[in-house]
Amino acid sequence: MTARGRTPTPPVHETVGGLGESGILRILNRRFAAVPAAGDWPEGTVGPGDDAAVVAAPDGRFVITTDAMAQDRDFRLDWPAVHGGRAHSDRGTFEGHGFPGGYSTGWKAAAQNLSDINAMGGEPSGLLLALTMPPATPVAWIDGLAAGIAGAVRHLGAARCRIVGGDLGSDDRITVAVTATGDLDGRLAVRRTLPPAVCAVTGRVDLDLVLCGRTGWAAAGLDVLETPRGLLDERLRAAEQAEQLEDGVRRLAAVAAAAQLRPRPVLGAGRVAAEAGALAMMDVSDGVLKDAGRLATANGLRAELDPDWVRREASVLVPLARALDPASGQRTAERWVSAGGEDYGLLAALPTGAAVPTGFRRIGRLVTASGAPAAADNGGSTGGWDHFTDR
Amino acid sequence: MTARGRTPTPPVHETVGGLGESGILRILNRRFAAVPAAGDWPEGTVGPGDDAAVVAAPDGRFVITTDAMAQDRDFRLDWPAVHGGRAHSDRGTFEGHGFPGGYSTGWKAAAQNLSDINAMGGEPSGLLLALTMPPATPVAWIDGLAAGIAGAVRHLGAARCRIVGGDLGSDDRITVAVTATGDLDGRLAVRRTLPPAVCAVTGRVDLDLVLCGRTGWAAAGLDVLETPRGLLDERLRAAEQAEQLEDGVRRLAAVAAAAQLRPRPVLGAGRVAAEAGALAMMDVSDGVLKDAGRLATANGLRAELDPDWVRREASVLVPLARALDPASGQRTAERWVSAGGEDYGLLAALPTGAAVPTGFRRIGRLVTASGAPAAADNGGSTGGWDHFTDR
Repeated sequence: MTARGRTPTPPVHETVGGLGESGILRILNRRFAAVPAAGDWPEGTVGPGDDAAVVAAPDGRFVITTDAMAQDRDFRLDWPAVHGGRAHSDRGTFEGHGFPGGYSTGWKAAAQNLSDINAMGGEPSGLLLALTMPPATPVAWIDGLAAGIAGAVRHLGAARCRIVGGDLGSDDRITVAVTATGDLDGRLAVRRTLPPAVCAVTGRVDLDLVLCGRTGWAAAGLDVLETPRGLLDERLRAAEQAEQLEDGVRRLAAVAAAAQLRPRPVLGAGRVAAEAGALAMMDVSDGVLKDAGRLATANGLRAELDPDWVRREASVLVPLARALDPASGQRTAERWVSAGGEDYGLLAALPTGAAVPTGFRRIGRLVTASGAPAAADNGGSTGGWDHFTDR
Repeated sequence: MTARGRTPTPPVHETVGGLGESGILRILNRRFAAVPAAGDWPEGTVGPGDDAAVVAAPDGRFVITTDAMAQDRDFRLDWPAVHGGRAHSDRGTFEGHGFPGGYSTGWKAAAQNLSDINAMGGEPSGLLLALTMPPATPVAWIDGLAAGIAGAVRHLGAARCRIVGGDLGSDDRITVAVTATGDLDGRLAVRRTLPPAVCAVTGRVDLDLVLCGRTGWAAAGLDVLETPRGLLDERLRAAEQAEQLEDGVRRLAAVAAAAQLRPRPVLGAGRVAAEAGALAMMDVSDGVLKDAGRLATANGLRAELDPDWVRREASVLVPLARALDPASGQRTAERWVSAGGEDYGLLAALPTGAAVPTGFRRIGRLVTASGAPAAADNGGSTGGWDHFTDR
C-alpha cells in the first residue's frame, strides 16, 4: 500500500457523522499503515488502540512538541494551509495534482511538528493526531488528511516514525492538533540558547549563522494562492510573453504554491548540524528575520543577515514577484526571503569560520550587541508572524 | 506559589488579543510554575520555550496519549466540561467556590489525559497544551485554564509531571488539546487486550472485573448542571422537606456537579493494579457498561456486571435522582452508574478469585461468550458516549 493513489477514495457525499468513531478510525488507520515503520512495535511497546501508546526511547529521553491548526485560520477545506487569507476556492491548478482534499493540511500538520523535532537534533519516533470536526465533514477529506500525514512521514524521510495514537471529537469546525516525538540517539539536544560555556569563555561573541533549506518560497506561494485565479492567469501569461520564457514563471508559481501547501523541512539536517558542532539551533516558522532575531535575543545577541545573501536568495523569485506586481519585483522577493515563514528551514549558530555543515549556507552572524537587551522575547518587532499581534 | 488563590487574577476586560504570544505565554507559565516538579529539569533534558522539549524516560520507553476538547461541545466558557448540553449560564452555585472561569476546563483536560497514562500502569511525566482561541478570549479565562491544569497535576498527585511544552494559535472558538506522557518504571504496560498466554492456557476464560473510583457521579452532575437553576433550587428544596434531610440532597448535587466539572481519577491505581497482577485494564470515560463491553470484546469475551453492585452503587445517588425526577429515582440512579461516563474510574481484569487490589471493588466478570463476536469494536451498541453516533 502507498500513501496515496492505490487506496480507493471514499465517495464524496459520505460524511464522518455516518461512520461513528470506529468507522473513522478504520479510515485513518488504513492510511497510517502506509508509513515505513508502521507495524514495527518492539517488545514492551504498545501501538494505537489502547488508552495510551508506549514508545521506545532508546537513550532514556525523548523529544516532544505539539502544534494545532484551525480551519479557516491555518488551512481551508478547499484550499488548505493558508493563514487568514482571502483565498479563492478553486484549487485546480496548484492543489489538483492528484492530491485529495485534506492532503496538504495533513502534510503540513505533520511537517511542522517533524521540523521541531529536527530542530533539536532529534530523529522523529512518533506522531499523535487529535482531530475535532463536525459530523458533516466529508470522509474523503479526513481520508486525505490521513494520507497527507502518512505522505509527509514517508516522503520527508522520517523512517523510524510511526503514528502512535490520537483522539477524535466533534466540533463546529475542524482543528488538527499533532504531537511529535523524537529520539536523540545519545546526543545532546541543540537548544536555542548557547551552552553557558560559550559566553563565559569568550566575553565577546561572534558566531556564524547558517541555514538549511529554502526561505521565501512558502510566502511567495501564499501570494500566488491568494491572487484570484483569473487575475493570476492573466499576469503569469503577460510575464511569460514579456520575458519570452516558456512556462518559466508559471512553473515558479506552482513550485511556490506547493512550498506553501506541502513544506519540506530537511529532516536529516538537525542531526548533521548537531554533529558538526552547532551551538544553537531553531527552525524557521515565522520568517528568517524574526526567527534569527529570536535566536539572537535568546542569547543576548544581535542577528545580522548578509544583505548579499538576501539579494541572491531573492533573485530566483524576482520574476514571479514581478509577474504578481510589476511595480515592486525585487522588493517583494526580498520581503518573501527575509520575512516569509512556513518554509521550515533550519537556522544554526556555529563558531566563526567553522566548516559549514552539508546542506547549510552561511547567511549572517550573531554578534554581541552594544546595548542589546539581555535574553528576552522578541515581541513582534522584527516582522514575521505572531498569531495574536499581527491580526 | 500555589495553583490558585495567591496569584492575582488578570482584570476581566483584558483579552489575549492585546497580549501577543509572549504575553500569553507569561500568563500560562506563571501558573505552570505551581506544579510540584516544575523547574526540575535534569541534565540532558530541556524544558518549555525551545522548538521542542526533551523529557527523561528512565526505562527506555514512554507512555503517550492525547485528547482534544472543543468549546460548546466539551466545555462552555461560563459552564465548563459538559457535553452538547442545554446548560444554563449561571455557574453560581456549583462553579463558584473560588474557581476562576476556565479552571474546570483545564482541570478536566489534564485529568482525562493523566487518567489514560494511569490506565496503562504508568506514572505521568509531562503535559503539553495546544490551545487555539479567538483574540477576544479573556486573559482571566486562560489564566484560569492554566491554573486548572496545574491544579489537577498537583491535587491528583502527579508528583513527577511537568508542563513540558505547548502551542498557541488563533481560531473563532477555543479548543484545548492536551498530550500527556508517562513512565512505566520498568513494568510492562497493562493493555486492554489480555496477554496471549492467558487465552492459550485456559481455553475457557473467566476473569474478575474490578473497578477503582466512583461511577455515576459525573453523569448525575451533568443532569444537575443541565437543570435550569430555578427549577433545580425548587426541586432540591422540595426533596429536603419531604425527606427531612438537612442540606443532604443539595450537598449530593454539589458533589455530583464537581465530579462532572473536575473529575478525580485515582492516579496511583494503575500501578497498584499492575503490581497486583491485572491482566487487562482501561479507564472508564464513556460509561462502565460500554467500556466493560469494550474490554470484553477486545478479547473476544462478554462482560457481566453484577446487578447487586449496580444497585448498591446507585443507592447513594437515589435521593438526588428522585429529587431531579420523582417518578424515576432508582432507574435514573442505576443509569447514571452503568452508562454514565467521565468519572475516569479504572477497570481491570484479574484471575478469578485473586485478591482485589487496594482501592478496587469487584463489579462483575469477563467470561467466554458462546457465539460472542471475536475481538471487534463495540460500536455504539451498549449505551454510553460516541462523539459521532450519539448526536
